[in-house]
Amino acid sequence: ISEEASAAPEPTGPSIEGLENVDGLSVTREGKVFKIALNRPKKFNALTLEMYQGIQKALEVSNNDKSTSITVITANGSYYCAGNDLTNFKAAAGGTKEQIADMANTAKVIMKDYVNAYINHEKPLIALINGPAVGIAVTVLGMFDYVIATDKASFHTPFAPLGQSPEGVSSYTFPLIMGSLRASEMLLVCKKISAQTAKDYGLVNEVVPDAEFQSHAQKTVEAFSQLPPETLRINKKLLRSLHKEKLLEVNNIEADQICERWQSKECHQAIAAFMTKGAKK
Amino acid sequence: ISEEASAAPEPTGPSIEGLENVDGLSVTREGKVFKIALNRPKKFNALTLEMYQGIQKALEVSNNDKSTSITVITANGSYYCAGNDLTNFKAAAGGTKEQIADMANTAKVIMKDYVNAYINHEKPLIALINGPAVGIAVTVLGMFDYVIATDKASFHTPFAPLGQSPEGVSSYTFPLIMGSLRASEMLLVCKKISAQTAKDYGLVNEVVPDAEFQSHAQKTVEAFSQLPPETLRINKKLLRSLHKEKLLEVNNIEADQICERWQSKECHQAIAAFMTKGAKK
Amino acid sequence: ISEEASAAPEPTGPSIEGLENVDGLSVTREGKVFKIALNRPKKFNALTLEMYQGIQKALEVSNNDKSTSITVITANGSYYCAGNDLTNFKAAAGGTKEQIADMANTAKVIMKDYVNAYINHEKPLIALINGPAVGIAVTVLGMFDYVIATDKASFHTPFAPLGQSPEGVSSYTFPLIMGSLRASEMLLVCKKISAQTAKDYGLVNEVVPDAEFQSHAQKTVEAFSQLPPETLRINKKLLRSLHKEKLLEVNNIEADQICERWQSKECHQAIAAFMTKGAKK
Repeated sequence: ISEEASAAPEPTGPSIEGLENVDGLSVTREGKVFKIALNRPKKFNALTLEMYQGIQKALEVSNNDKSTSITVITANGSYYCAGNDLTNFKAAAGGTKEQIADMANTAKVIMKDYVNAYINHEKPLIALINGPAVGIAVTVLGMFDYVIATDKASFHTPFAPLGQSPEGVSSYTFPLIMGSLRASEMLLVCKKISAQTAKDYGLVNEVVPDAEFQSHAQKTVEAFSQLPPETLRINKKLLRSLHKEKLLEVNNIEADQICERWQSKECHQAIAAFMTKGAKK
Repeated sequence: ISEEASAAPEPTGPSIEGLENVDGLSVTREGKVFKIALNRPKKFNALTLEMYQGIQKALEVSNNDKSTSITVITANGSYYCAGNDLTNFKAAAGGTKEQIADMANTAKVIMKDYVNAYINHEKPLIALINGPAVGIAVTVLGMFDYVIATDKASFHTPFAPLGQSPEGVSSYTFPLIMGSLRASEMLLVCKKISAQTAKDYGLVNEVVPDAEFQSHAQKTVEAFSQLPPETLRINKKLLRSLHKEKLLEVNNIEADQICERWQSKECHQAIAAFMTKGAKK
Repeated sequence: ISEEASAAPEPTGPSIEGLENVDGLSVTREGKVFKIALNRPKKFNALTLEMYQGIQKALEVSNNDKSTSITVITANGSYYCAGNDLTNFKAAAGGTKEQIADMANTAKVIMKDYVNAYINHEKPLIALINGPAVGIAVTVLGMFDYVIATDKASFHTPFAPLGQSPEGVSSYTFPLIMGSLRASEMLLVCKKISAQTAKDYGLVNEVVPDAEFQSHAQKTVEAFSQLPPETLRINKKLLRSLHKEKLLEVNNIEADQICERWQSKECHQAIAAFMTKGAKK
């Protein structure tokens, strides 16, 4: 879900051992904070297949990085993330049934590994939501430990209108976080919600006026990063391990389901309509 | 829990194949909406045994109805539903122990099948709560996908004062939706809550001023019904299947428990006191 | 976490059969209410090992007390409870590795039995939070059925800063009550929350202005105690039994974990820093 925007990507920081540079990502260490920033603002930070794999790798490297105690994900520009870049599917638009199946299966494996990297992450995981969040950028929030959002953020998971199904283990985490009725509101009938509603639903911990967002977020993250690191890992594991097996299982189920959806008529019709609408603008 | 009210039942719509007319119910198709309306306003839409079975059958017919994409439950008159009609138990009031046991077991099977029809429902299920809701009309809300309530609605499950136990799989769904403390507030110490509190607790998605309730509800339902129907079913199944086995199991446990309660001294004393109070008015 | 405060302990009530007097506790019957009051206000009602065991025993006696229908826990003075009295660990401060391990294992068993007494409690359990609550006084709230708090209360579980891990089965109950993100806010990054926020998070049912707190709490508790007692037990069991096995299992896991933490370097450094800070005041 992406169009041209004005902001230029910020320069990426110094490279971190074990990580290659990936277009659209900036991975840095800031004090005891391991920071992953989406850096494709012109495309509203929509996720390419390379970005999925880059974030996955960064989460794994952070796991083993003893010099930092927490992991932060945020984005550059006025958007947080437009979700899965639908041009990931463009190549297959005119393809044969087999070509579409191949593409769907490739994307499925990449997305499943991406989500598993969140399930397996061992440090406190903080999201700084600097603007609108869409699709898989919203669904994976159920695996974070603390989310700060600007009051300009919004949260939207338009699966049904696109003929797709929920991922990011949201079919497991969202009902636990907000209850089944609010989960269906977001994941089944797909209403867009504001930052304040996301806070009321327990998907966001703090909403901050946009002008103060960056400074408040940085101060908060800095404070969290000073907590005893071994204790943080152990306590995160204690909270997570009760659900881990189920999360891995649900990720498999969701991945199989969305792979089937990507090959369905309802999905193709919806994406074609979306592309046409975009082209007409 | 019913007394005489002023509203007359609305005429039932054209009959739907596979469904017989049931006193107190109106089942219609409106566009892509399969609509079940409680239609016994003089008795505050309290549920007779025939109405339980009629709704169960309507939910099953809707499951197989390809011409509609969502199912809506609402009611005619100023009440949503007064819950289980206590006159269902009147016949047994002066009965022998065996007669009471027979009646309790009959009602148990009907209620269990009724609740299973919700667990097994495959379309998005929307409730339009047009007024106060009591007992099983409240507890089954945990199986809905979206609930809109007028600001004149209230929600009350007075099980303990009547010597009864929670049903509608609420002992499973309510703690997941609102947390154990709020669930105990409603189901154990039995406080009545307002529409706004029900929204705060995640049991209601939207509260609408009474004057705008019908038009807003209709517009919302109409919009939901336009989503791709196959995707809706698949996504509902994804969200529901994680809990389905447990829901069926809990329904059995709750049904056995309430059947035992119906035969208990505390329940008989409470219902006798309730009937006496009603007769004195 | 205790310093000298001004309030004197209130006199304990008449003794209850099967219960010995314990310093810092007052256990009484008031009508149909079985009431346990922390009574060590000069130490902010911090829990000594004797108080853990006294409360455990009182909960067990209440279980078998047919003359009361509900159990209430509250405290005397302006604090609710400062949590685990860190002087419980003072003796081991200069000890050998073996002495520390002995102390940790003793405390672990006492704490585990204490928490199991909540898991196994059969009556509706009401907390009247008359002031700030800290640590295990907060975490066990997930096993209560109704919590009333003064607006002067606050809720804080500073595990990470003290190098410790969550207990009171909070790693299971808190994510279910408030969702994983709010649970991590309290249990992982350890933010202190107000009474109103605790209500928003579903950890408290009612917040009452301090001037009206005692009279409102007493009236509410009195009303609950009039409900049919057998029905209350049965309905509590129905709600609890779905989670009981898991709660007992999680209590074991948490107890093992905190016992390990108590012997860790991060915990010793944190407690030493805390004690030094206290001594300097």
